[in-house]
Amino acid sequence: MTDQRREAPIGVFDSGLGGLTVARAIRARLPSERLIYLGDTARVPYGTRSAHTVIRYARTCASHLAARGVKMLVVACNTVSAVALPMLRVELDVPVLGVIGPGARAGVAATRSHRVGILATAGTVGSGAYPRMIAATSTRCEVVQRAAPLLVPLVEEGWLDGEVPPLVVRRYLADLIAQDVDTIVLGCTHYPLLAPLIEREAAALAGAPVAIVDSAEATAEELAAVLEERGLAREGEGGLDLMVTDLPDRFAEVASRFLGQELSREDVAAIDL
Amino acid sequence: MTDQRREAPIGVFDSGLGGLTVARAIRARLPSERLIYLGDTARVPYGTRSAHTVIRYARTCASHLAARGVKMLVVACNTVSAVALPMLRVELDVPVLGVIGPGARAGVAATRSHRVGILATAGTVGSGAYPRMIAATSTRCEVVQRAAPLLVPLVEEGWLDGEVPPLVVRRYLADLIAQDVDTIVLGCTHYPLLAPLIEREAAALAGAPVAIVDSAEATAEELAAVLEERGLAREGEGGLDLMVTDLPDRFAEVASRFLGQELSREDVAAIDL
Repeated sequence: MTDQRREAPIGVFDSGLGGLTVARAIRARLPSERLIYLGDTARVPYGTRSAHTVIRYARTCASHLAARGVKMLVVACNTVSAVALPMLRVELDVPVLGVIGPGARAGVAATRSHRVGILATAGTVGSGAYPRMIAATSTRCEVVQRAAPLLVPLVEEGWLDGEVPPLVVRRYLADLIAQDVDTIVLGCTHYPLLAPLIEREAAALAGAPVAIVDSAEATAEELAAVLEERGLAREGEGGLDLMVTDLPDRFAEVASRFLGQELSREDVAAIDL
Repeated sequence: MTDQRREAPIGVFDSGLGGLTVARAIRARLPSERLIYLGDTARVPYGTRSAHTVIRYARTCASHLAARGVKMLVVACNTVSAVALPMLRVELDVPVLGVIGPGARAGVAATRSHRVGILATAGTVGSGAYPRMIAATSTRCEVVQRAAPLLVPLVEEGWLDGEVPPLVVRRYLADLIAQDVDTIVLGCTHYPLLAPLIEREAAALAGAPVAIVDSAEATAEELAAVLEERGLAREGEGGLDLMVTDLPDRFAEVASRFLGQELSREDVAAIDL
């Protein structure tokens, strides 16, 4: 039974393709695991929807993955992680890991000044999920948040360098650095693609290095620990299956950039939820 | 009967709040009309969805407005106008006006060089709706398109001046101006808020004035003509009712900027579709 459990895949889902940075980090950290990625592209983005609507969508995604026999579920979406984890943990029989807990804990571990900045979408900032999670981890940390709505389209457009991205990033970072944070948590799964630029601009503004916490990597690290603890880690060659609820062609195109590997239309299955 | 028809409201719908620039233009052009605006904020944006999904969403919005007895329907959404107008015209008993036809026709009327540029979202550009509509209007016009994914978040963020918007706008315009267009149609309902900046930057790049066509204004103009023609124009004091399918609070906040008038939460009704 345990052997069968070990062989089972890990389910990863997101509202769209941002969660692929989490899938990529998991592939790098746990190359023997088999991942099933579900991007709910028919209903992306979740960040502009009410908690009620997000919970409803999250339930259908999670049920679909549960029906495929996953041994664990990774919610690679900040919006869902902020509002739907308690519900998913009650309803599912497998461990559920979000991206906010790992990012918050890695932020607390990285800061020396106990001032942590959060860069995220307006929805995630408004949810207060990162400040709450950091407060649950450390009583000493102060948290400063900044919503950064232009970063997602910058990444999806592929504008990762040139004249515009540094100006946009600098404008968002200035507020955080002015409040003396020494650590910035990237609270959106799109942002890892801008991490080198964010790191450089933050250091330039602060006049000293600023720790940039990639919550995708932090999530992969915690996932590895949970699998190890529960004796669920798999051996051998792993893999990645991709499913989306709409527009598989466009997904395959942009996903190549997020995953850092070439994908074609045939690599992406279209499903209805 | 005709009197009753005349008194009926005009339905306007969009996936979110962009269509408010169209509602605003209609209010300015036809202050005696009563408008009902429906923003499908639970499912915004439509631009990233398949034609099949957009048609399904458009049908539910249109049915809801038809049930409220509208005398005419304005589809204030480029995505829906591009793919769902024929379906809506078959299924509804009232005249249906989209935003692409009026914008395209105004572009053809404005150009002297017979080279028209289209600035729009990736979805609208991909649909080919503007080139098709312009070709149906004039056999002489060449059309150059440019997708501009950062402009919607710029507008929603309220970044209408400062250092970043001119750089972003210039990057998008450069491709159009390099191909000698003398007219640019703003093919997205968010863009009218950036129209002064776009006009200035386009003229600077071209070294001569470039005509900027605001499709919201063009739509209001054609709507006035249709009402006049069919004897459906109303007299007296008009009004604007607002309905959304999710997050009425946030809508009221940003909508004030789009409409150019202060709104509070009480001005926006939340409905389920």
